[in-house]
Amino acid sequence: MKNAAGREVPVEANGKPLSPYAGVGKHRPEGRKAGPPIRSCADFPSNGDKRAPSLKMALERSGLQSGMTVSTHHHLRNGDFVAQQLFETAEEMGLRDLVWFPSAVFPCHAELIPLIEKGVIRHIEGSLNGPLGRFASEGRMNGLAVLRSHGGRYRSLQDGDVKVDVAVLASPVCDSFGNMDGTHGLSACGSLGFGLADAQYADHVLAITDCLVPFPNLPAQIPGNYVDQVVEVDRLGDPSQIVSGTTQLTRSPDRLLISQLCAAFVRAAGIMRDGFSFQAGAGGISLAFTSFLGEWMRRDGVRARFIRGGSTKILVQMLEEGLTDFILDGQTFDADAVESMRRNPTRHISTSPFTSYNYHGKGNFASILDVAVLGATEIDLEFNANVATHSDGLLLHGLGGWPDALFAQCTILAAPSFRNRMPIVRDRVTTLCGPGELIDVVVTERGIAINPRRSDLLEALKGSDLPLTTLDKLKSESESICGKPEPLELTDERVGVVTWVDGTAIDSVYRPAHLVKPS
Amino acid sequence: MKNAAGREVPVEANGKPLSPYAGVGKHRPEGRKAGPPIRSCADFPSNGDKRAPSLKMALERSGLQSGMTVSTHHHLRNGDFVAQQLFETAEEMGLRDLVWFPSAVFPCHAELIPLIEKGVIRHIEGSLNGPLGRFASEGRMNGLAVLRSHGGRYRSLQDGDVKVDVAVLASPVCDSFGNMDGTHGLSACGSLGFGLADAQYADHVLAITDCLVPFPNLPAQIPGNYVDQVVEVDRLGDPSQIVSGTTQLTRSPDRLLISQLCAAFVRAAGIMRDGFSFQAGAGGISLAFTSFLGEWMRRDGVRARFIRGGSTKILVQMLEEGLTDFILDGQTFDADAVESMRRNPTRHISTSPFTSYNYHGKGNFASILDVAVLGATEIDLEFNANVATHSDGLLLHGLGGWPDALFAQCTILAAPSFRNRMPIVRDRVTTLCGPGELIDVVVTERGIAINPRRSDLLEALKGSDLPLTTLDKLKSESESICGKPEPLELTDERVGVVTWVDGTAIDSVYRPAHLVKPS
Repeated sequence: MKNAAGREVPVEANGKPLSPYAGVGKHRPEGRKAGPPIRSCADFPSNGDKRAPSLKMALERSGLQSGMTVSTHHHLRNGDFVAQQLFETAEEMGLRDLVWFPSAVFPCHAELIPLIEKGVIRHIEGSLNGPLGRFASEGRMNGLAVLRSHGGRYRSLQDGDVKVDVAVLASPVCDSFGNMDGTHGLSACGSLGFGLADAQYADHVLAITDCLVPFPNLPAQIPGNYVDQVVEVDRLGDPSQIVSGTTQLTRSPDRLLISQLCAAFVRAAGIMRDGFSFQAGAGGISLAFTSFLGEWMRRDGVRARFIRGGSTKILVQMLEEGLTDFILDGQTFDADAVESMRRNPTRHISTSPFTSYNYHGKGNFASILDVAVLGATEIDLEFNANVATHSDGLLLHGLGGWPDALFAQCTILAAPSFRNRMPIVRDRVTTLCGPGELIDVVVTERGIAINPRRSDLLEALKGSDLPLTTLDKLKSESESICGKPEPLELTDERVGVVTWVDGTAIDSVYRPAHLVKPS
Repeated sequence: MKNAAGREVPVEANGKPLSPYAGVGKHRPEGRKAGPPIRSCADFPSNGDKRAPSLKMALERSGLQSGMTVSTHHHLRNGDFVAQQLFETAEEMGLRDLVWFPSAVFPCHAELIPLIEKGVIRHIEGSLNGPLGRFASEGRMNGLAVLRSHGGRYRSLQDGDVKVDVAVLASPVCDSFGNMDGTHGLSACGSLGFGLADAQYADHVLAITDCLVPFPNLPAQIPGNYVDQVVEVDRLGDPSQIVSGTTQLTRSPDRLLISQLCAAFVRAAGIMRDGFSFQAGAGGISLAFTSFLGEWMRRDGVRARFIRGGSTKILVQMLEEGLTDFILDGQTFDADAVESMRRNPTRHISTSPFTSYNYHGKGNFASILDVAVLGATEIDLEFNANVATHSDGLLLHGLGGWPDALFAQCTILAAPSFRNRMPIVRDRVTTLCGPGELIDVVVTERGIAINPRRSDLLEALKGSDLPLTTLDKLKSESESICGKPEPLELTDERVGVVTWVDGTAIDSVYRPAHLVKPS
């Protein structure tokens, strides 16, 4: 079926119906939020101690059966030991055909490929990247990869599109009642926001920890009232891979230039004013943008009301210097930021996809932002963008919060005009992830293209000495350097579907012809 | 129908079916939690500003119709201006037959009686006390008063027994997105926990405030993501009646003696040990108990892990002196306690009936407490107790958190052995609110009666010099002073039903014969 963006999409994925993308804000949800089973205190120990003797015993008590759906959050990032412990235990229990519903996967999760091949895991439901993305691209995973944004994943649980049977949620510090927090402990990871939906909506919830403290572990990011059992393990993860020790700005001159142009644009457009807000991630360009913008703010004496991360040392310095009243973040990327959450509990606030990104809510924080600086792998002449696949068709990036963050009052995509001699401005993006009407500005090292829909921004930049350009010009310039890219040959084997923030199907991912499915 | 406690209860209340009380932990809930309607960000302003021009406009936009159910929380206590503004506006809009579902009522709400008489409010669903309790006792309210504990009210919304169409939630400090908090502003009341269920489960939620601050008003006690509209009014309430300026210990020698005996019992029973926890309310006896216990803790060098209030200056002093690690409270009774929540955001924690009291949850905080000291109006020889009616049959007290708090590891009822020459130990309590199996100790000025089920406590107190007695002895002693009370004559006109924490009907409230229904 062709959707409103002209893309072929399936009418179902893995046996569940899918609506086609209808345009931004056009799909009208119906019905009521999902509800997990009603429990009774009569079935829980009155002293509040919900500890199970082992992960295996906890999984047995949870009623986990072959074919069920289990979920985890990704706050332990590339240091996660939880998924492997979970699925190895499941294998030991003789379980098969499990569906894994992580909030994101990391390169470390390549270690699960043998368990997929053995049939312990039948399918991974969610955004895929790195080795698991390649695995799916090769057509080696059973069922379609269903890509959801962070907000879309929250929404899918809230709306009942996905039902999790057992959630296994890492809690770097926890009490025996299950009050969960991420700011302390050996495996401290900062925010736990991505686990909230699982706690709220799963039928059975395990909190898994390597740092048990006496009740009450409060304030908790996730209250133990959502938790059925608490499991102690030796180690949740590898601290050096959970948070990075240091924050690396890009050193590439092109990328530094892009970052500088972003900051200069935000200032020249009048967005950088007292009480403004911005979001920038932890990629090299984003960090450098934040750093350059901070310089302008100091120079002009401007204070932000709030900044959204993932948070890093740079944001923490800005908070403590008084350049912003608040950091609101859903992820915490380095040790300084975790420490800041402990030190500034009323100024450095953990958020969740419920507060920040859920499109089927009563508004969310993402759209309130004055400006968001994000990346992209490809952009077409209508500002439509791709963030999931590369121009070679490989599924290598999760959607993350990218589609959710597009709703900022001004959305800037910052990217080099070509990568590996592949121009990023294309006639058609390989995979459509974000509609052009939500993308206001593209900043490259060769200039800044403003979406013609944003006449206000065009007006504001009139007479500025910034290098304004158009996507057309960016395209022809990069093609004159790299040559016109060969059209990508895709097979008709659909390996994934990209969903929009409202759950509709915005595009399909196909196996590239150059990738041969291993026999 | 007769329930498991031998009390006559109705099989329905106000058109909704009621199950009879089956015993503690015996009623098994089924089904899944209620879900409010799924919304879309497309219907909310992208800049997050949900302000409505007036309460009237907001109520019109909410879709409020005659016959619907509206709710409020009671954190503004006897200083609340919200209920009156709400129902006067409803009258102005020509609405009738509304059901009001407050989390509690106060004497100030007597001002709503004319609106009940005019038919703007058809019925008040919930615990009643003071003037509105008398009004119901007189049989003047349409429909049955359905008394629920604080936890029972949360449960009724969660389980879908009660559906709120429009919740109007006072937020002493709020931003235009609806992030609600009670710790700042002219009308600061501390915790907002009793409004959480309404925010989570009502179809439409208004945040009403007299102190609007710029986004983000975070950390928020209730996230604005639950809020449809924000309304600014001149005044939420009368600050002098929202929190008391000073904390009054009882001055009655008998009550001071009771308080001392409670504290001495807690110490002698070995409950007062390092890391213990207790709950005591803000009544005169409770405050004096806390004060005496604090003295023992200082003397013996014992620290509590946490104390539950309603919090007061006395608890705050204990926190700041290091006598407890945490205060967890669902209500904040005086100005010092509100200030403490601001000053100690990681040690003075606002809780809600979801975390503390919901019986249809995965455990709750109330049962974890080592000891709770509560009141009662009547107690029978099996330790069954009444807290709602007086021995004259008048419905004068809401259930509050009393039934929920009975689940503490040791529950002490502290009360004078007679009041107004009416003995509190009776053959049969006028209204059964709490089953004797959950009540461990009764402390009066004439001695301490331990429930024979608690052989461990009887053992622990062996050889102590505390005045141990029995309920039989307390009964005959007080009857020898006051005379045997005349049996209370009740009509067969049922004016209310008392529900247990699991939603079952534990007893009925009848109109006393001495109260003549005004014509």
